[in-house]
Amino acid sequence: MRFSEEILNEIDFEKGNGLVPVVVQDFKTKKILMVAYANREALQKTLETGFAHYYSRSRKELWKKGETSGNLQRVKEIYIDCDGDTLLYVVNQKGVACHTGEYSCFFRKLAEEE
Amino acid sequence: MRFSEEILNEIDFEKGNGLVPVVVQDFKTKKILMVAYANREALQKTLETGFAHYYSRSRKELWKKGETSGNLQRVKEIYIDCDGDTLLYVVNQKGVACHTGEYSCFFRKLAEEE
Repeated sequence: MRFSEEILNEIDFEKGNGLVPVVVQDFKTKKILMVAYANREALQKTLETGFAHYYSRSRKELWKKGETSGNLQRVKEIYIDCDGDTLLYVVNQKGVACHTGEYSCFFRKLAEEE
Repeated sequence: MRFSEEILNEIDFEKGNGLVPVVVQDFKTKKILMVAYANREALQKTLETGFAHYYSRSRKELWKKGETSGNLQRVKEIYIDCDGDTLLYVVNQKGVACHTGEYSCFFRKLAEEE
């Protein structure tokens, strides 16, 4: 991917002990697909390959989204937020994003306006 | 707000030491506005009032979004993700979401597909 070295240096990995949360949004539908975490290495792999990589907090390892399921995420754009501690990946999702088989991980509605 | 007690009980506040990240999405434009954090009390206040409340990790206190700036967020819908450790607030944003004056906190593009 084409990226800005200057903006890359503004990412605050320290605040979250080496990790930043990554919001993943579908490029076409604008739906929120999932939230995962990235360390510096996962972000580097994403920038190098154009496919979303994350860091699994439970397995304590780097993972490429869809490596076993085939549900790859091609990353179109990456944004960082104002204080540099959160990323947004805008992706083309192959198949579904959620391990339950749902398209988005946010398939349960907790509440709505009355 | 109308909410499901059953789904409320599935939120995993323990994983993040009492906090869950909240992705905030604009109801009309589908833009991601910001990511903040909620504890149980902030979520309760949001459900009671219909206005977005969060927990500030730096100030260590509950805050109502827009209380000083006037940039309130009326919450239309709340979703939880598959493993119950992240929330999504879909909101009507008054004014702007970011303290910099930008509409969204994700106004800086780090990278794009080649």
